[in-house]
Order: sequence, then C-alpha cells, then structure tokens
Amino acid sequence: MLHILVTNDDGIDSKGIHALVHELRSFARVTVIAPDRQQSAVGHALTVADPLRATPFHRDGELFGFAVSGTPADCVKLGLTTLMSEKPDLVVSGINHGANTAVNVVYSGTVSAATEGMIMGVPSIAVSLCNFDPDADCTAAAHFAGIIVRHALDLNIPTGSILNVNVPALPREEIQGIKFVPLSRGYWDDRYDVRSDPMQRTYYWIHGTYHVPAGEHESDDGALADGYVAVTPIKFELTDRPTLASLASRFNELQNGAGANPR
Amino acid sequence: MLHILVTNDDGIDSKGIHALVHELRSFARVTVIAPDRQQSAVGHALTVADPLRATPFHRDGELFGFAVSGTPADCVKLGLTTLMSEKPDLVVSGINHGANTAVNVVYSGTVSAATEGMIMGVPSIAVSLCNFDPDADCTAAAHFAGIIVRHALDLNIPTGSILNVNVPALPREEIQGIKFVPLSRGYWDDRYDVRSDPMQRTYYWIHGTYHVPAGEHESDDGALADGYVAVTPIKFELTDRPTLASLASRFNELQNGAGANPR
Repeated sequence: MLHILVTNDDGIDSKGIHALVHELRSFARVTVIAPDRQQSAVGHALTVADPLRATPFHRDGELFGFAVSGTPADCVKLGLTTLMSEKPDLVVSGINHGANTAVNVVYSGTVSAATEGMIMGVPSIAVSLCNFDPDADCTAAAHFAGIIVRHALDLNIPTGSILNVNVPALPREEIQGIKFVPLSRGYWDDRYDVRSDPMQRTYYWIHGTYHVPAGEHESDDGALADGYVAVTPIKFELTDRPTLASLASRFNELQNGAGANPR
Repeated sequence: MLHILVTNDDGIDSKGIHALVHELRSFARVTVIAPDRQQSAVGHALTVADPLRATPFHRDGELFGFAVSGTPADCVKLGLTTLMSEKPDLVVSGINHGANTAVNVVYSGTVSAATEGMIMGVPSIAVSLCNFDPDADCTAAAHFAGIIVRHALDLNIPTGSILNVNVPALPREEIQGIKFVPLSRGYWDDRYDVRSDPMQRTYYWIHGTYHVPAGEHESDDGALADGYVAVTPIKFELTDRPTLASLASRFNELQNGAGANPR
C-alpha cells in the first residue's frame, strides 16, 4: 500500500492538512508529521541551534500525527531520518491556505517541505489552495490532490524536481481540469508601513500587492485565472550553466584589462 | 561612486561582515543593514506576521549600519524599499562564517539575502568563508570579495541570477586564484541525536556529515579543495522546463488509462 508522509506549513491543526489527510487515507497509508504552529513564509529554514520536540497530536479522538516544534523542512528531515521506521513512497505538503505560484515558491514553507523530501530522495508534491482564509473550503483541492497523488509514482517525477500544485478557489464542478504549466513571472510590489508604537518608536510592517505581467497566460497564474489546477515541476538545479563559461571568460578579461592580479 | 548594500546572516556584530565592509569602504559607499542576531540556516524566510525594528548600530565609535530584528531577506527588502533613499548598485551578503556550496545554498540565509536583492532587481553576490569559527581570519575572503565586487557591474550578471562566492580557509598567499564552477552534488548525511531532558522527555538534535561524491572535481567543492576561490552563478528559474511537456503527456496517458476523470 502506498505510504505517504504528509506535512504542511500552516500547522498540524489547520483545515487544509486535515482535508488532505482525509482524502489520502481513502487509498493510502498516511503518516502526518507537521509543525505545531503556523510557519508561513518561513522559507527553507532548518533548526540547527535548538532541539526539536515531537508530540502525538489527536483529532476527533484519534491519533492524527506528530506535532513538531520546528519548520516544515525540519518535519520532513526528522520524519525521514528518525521518526519513521521506513521510508515513505511520497512526501505531500499541504494543503496550504494561499497560492504558491511564481516567485512565491522561494518563500514558501509548503514548497520547502516538498523540496526537503526531494533532497532526501523521496518523490515530493506541494499542494496549495488559492485562498488565504484559514476556514476556506478545501474539498476541491483535496480531491485534485488525490488524483495527482494517485498518479505520482507512475509519473516518474525526475530526480531533483518536485511537483508544485495550485488549486483555484472554486467549487469542484467549476474547475476546468489540470494543466502542466511553467511558473509565471508574477512579482510582489512590496512596501512597508512605517508606524509608531505607543512609546513613539518606529516599526515597519510589510504589505504588498501581487502583479502578474501581461502575456503570462501559459503559466501557473494564467491557468488558475482560467479555472484550472496548475501543476509545475520545479527543479533545484541552481547552477546557471548557460552563463557559467561566458561569465568566467568575461571575468578573466576584466581582470587582465584592469591589470589586476587574482592574488 | 559605487553604492553597495551589505547584509549577512551571522548578525551585524560578526567578524565576517566587519571585514567585508572594511574592504568595500576602501573603494565604495557602503550601507549596512543586517540582522541584529545570528540567523543561520534560516533559508529565505520573510517576516510577515510581526513588525520589524531597525536600530542604528555603532562600531569603534562610529555608525556602522542598521540592525534589523529580522532575517537576511527582511533586511534586503526593508532596506531597498524603505530605509534607503536610493537604490544601491549592488547587494553583497557576507562574509558568512561557513561554506555555502552545493545543496547548502537552499538553506543559506547568506544566499537568500542575495537572492532577495536579485528578486528586487539589484545585482547581488553572496560571499562565504569555508570556516565556521566565528573568530576565523576573514582577511583573504575580504580581499577576494573586493576583487569580485570591483568587477561585478562589468560582469553583467544575468537577470535572475546571483553570484555565489566561497573562499577557502587559507592565508591569502596560499589561495590559487578564482574559478567559475558549477555547484557540486555534495549532500548531507543528516541524523538526529535522540536525547532525554531532565524530565525524561525526548528531544531531537540535528547533526550530520557532509559528503562530496567522487568525480566532482569541476565544482565549487572541488575548486575549494584545490585552494581556489569558487564562484558559481545561481539561477532561480525554477520551472523544470525540459520535463514539463513529457510530464503533462504522461499524466494525460495515466488519467486516460485509468479511466479517471479530471473532475
């Protein structure tokens, strides 16, 4: 039987992980190891300077999983190395309350958990719902996550890549299907509110607006706007190989031109 | 005059950032905006649920920069959007106390600060010294960072990429030169110590050993082992485009073969 490690970044008591686990348990064995509290925008943080705790977490009178005092990446690493007696077939992270498209994957704890699974050698999937409301209806997202997870092993996700899945905030019957699309070039126009605390000391609070440039129809954001589930393979082969050689020769020219010495 | 935003992840009072700023101030205007405390392995975290503070930080009786109550990515975003009145020409993050080669760039706060600079449209460089000792000699690393920073604008770092620089822990005269190389396939064999606290409750503490597979000579780890400064362009174009089309058609086959309906 398919064995899946499920985690998330909204915390083990969130609605999204509950809906996901409920769906996956209809056809797979599921081990839940998730943060004991909200960990959004935590990136790929790993707790090294402090110890971690793992506490059994019950839901509806049954053991649901383990709540870990760490980040999504901590949950996956601790689970795969220590808490689980055997390696699962898949890691699934989600369902996140909020989209993880475009540049957002860089900041996303949900995506980082899947990335950690991939780094540890397990095929991994991140699932997000395009609705930040912690009380959002996750039924459709769980349904589509189930379809993709059922096919995940046969898909042969390439080594070094994860699948990043975003589901539009629509009722199931209004979702048009599943599209494999690249990340969009969407970006945040970030600003900070500059405020004064009661002691007249300045503090700063981030707020931003998200923009998708025109001409991004064939992308995750484009597919979602059209009512499709967007699936993007994300590859953490970070070396910019196409420019490596040209940068090296340009640097040598600059050094020689300037008469500089590498020592 | 070249204007550089300098940040790091070891905190504004670390030796590495001091050595870097001292070197860069010999030929550039430098604004320092760095975390008020150690932020290692913080990944690309962004503080959204809490406000940020920025406090003037003095060193040797002079204003050194601003200490921010956040992550390296916070420092760059707050600096570029709010604290600085004009956009700098470059963001330089470091000098990190410890190597950031191979997969370590995924976890690195040093690299995430440079990545945030790139996301915000500023050419960015991360600099790390292969020595975790907070009291390590940073002279050689600062010297080579200076050489690379002097040429950085003329290098025309491609949009979407940063330069990741690692300097071996050697005296300057023993360093062989500068090599442009890909990230290695080095990996961590991570384990957790399972311990009991004074109340007999279990806790877990990560420890790992780093391995570089054989045949990785032409890489950052390989260059460092040979005594070279390793420079790697890192590109955050995360879509796995080569496999996008084949995954999509394989998924369609699987759905049809299984008679499943995307709804």
